[in-house]
Amino acid sequence: MRDSKPVPDIVIGRLPIYLRALTHMLEDGQQITASKEMAERLGISSAQIRKDLSHFGEFGKQGMGYDIAHLRDQIKRILKVDRIWDAALVGAGDLGHAIVQYGGFEGRGFRVACVFDNNPQKIGRRLGNFEICDVVEMPQKLREMGLKVAIVAVPASAAQAVVNDLVEGGVRAILTYAPITVSVPPDVRVQYTDPVTHLQRMTYYL
Amino acid sequence: MRDSKPVPDIVIGRLPIYLRALTHMLEDGQQITASKEMAERLGISSAQIRKDLSHFGEFGKQGMGYDIAHLRDQIKRILKVDRIWDAALVGAGDLGHAIVQYGGFEGRGFRVACVFDNNPQKIGRRLGNFEICDVVEMPQKLREMGLKVAIVAVPASAAQAVVNDLVEGGVRAILTYAPITVSVPPDVRVQYTDPVTHLQRMTYYL
Repeated sequence: MRDSKPVPDIVIGRLPIYLRALTHMLEDGQQITASKEMAERLGISSAQIRKDLSHFGEFGKQGMGYDIAHLRDQIKRILKVDRIWDAALVGAGDLGHAIVQYGGFEGRGFRVACVFDNNPQKIGRRLGNFEICDVVEMPQKLREMGLKVAIVAVPASAAQAVVNDLVEGGVRAILTYAPITVSVPPDVRVQYTDPVTHLQRMTYYL
Repeated sequence: MRDSKPVPDIVIGRLPIYLRALTHMLEDGQQITASKEMAERLGISSAQIRKDLSHFGEFGKQGMGYDIAHLRDQIKRILKVDRIWDAALVGAGDLGHAIVQYGGFEGRGFRVACVFDNNPQKIGRRLGNFEICDVVEMPQKLREMGLKVAIVAVPASAAQAVVNDLVEGGVRAILTYAPITVSVPPDVRVQYTDPVTHLQRMTYYL
């Protein structure tokens, strides 16, 4: 890192967007890009993109653009997704099934490593390659496995209790699909998937 | 609108985030907020928030803060979510089931209005309150119903063909869960839900 000042959360939040765009460019056979091209693609100003990246050093030469593969690898390293994070999935319902089958995790730093549910009719059965475990055992199992990442796919009414158990089990990064805001200690991060936010970004133009 | 210049997409993209925060504040019984408080809550600078809102007029008095209910209503109006948009759901698999059951659409401008699938074993059966319709009939049905919004919950391999049919049926706003980039004409908007982007925003801190 260039200096000791912490990088703003909002900058960290944009890095995965850059990473996704760079990965798509590479898949399309492209090798070099410029902040201007990324700006047009992402709807973020090129000055903002250059400023965001400058927090982490120099990635491009003036007028030469960015080497896409190098920039991608550096962003993966910064975000610590140059490795595989095992994640706990909580909720073996329809959404849990969809998440286990989801093809978008591969090569992007994450994989589901275990599945929990509270339904006695599901516990002990299989979901994909996993045996569904009892959520009562979750904190202990999480600690045994050393998991830091979890995905919550339970109804809104159960989400806070599940999150409490995840935190007790040592999880520090939680992605939740439940349409409810949950409380966590300051050292735990939560991200919300919210399809409505995405839909609301489009109706303005209709 | 204050002037005739188009509002940048990135500003429109932040309005749903503001809307969600304002709604939460109201639910917590709060009546007045300030750009500074919103900034701390959202990790976006207060100057940016004031600038974003200034595109649409004056919402707060200097030093007085914003009336939360008024600002929420104005943002809903700007985003055109002060009404209900009927949306087509494509894909009656696990994810489709989860979306139909999702409690987060209510009061936020959207509802599922019909469900399509290509599986003969699913067509004609029910998913929640809906009869699953044959995707072959989709373009015509969408036009009959006048739908402009759709949610795509099909595998990556089927996503582009589904999107083509949606566009043919007159849909202009598409939210897709498939982990693949789709092509659409310039007058059609696409948003991607991407759980990995959310996860990647947290591993930096681990």
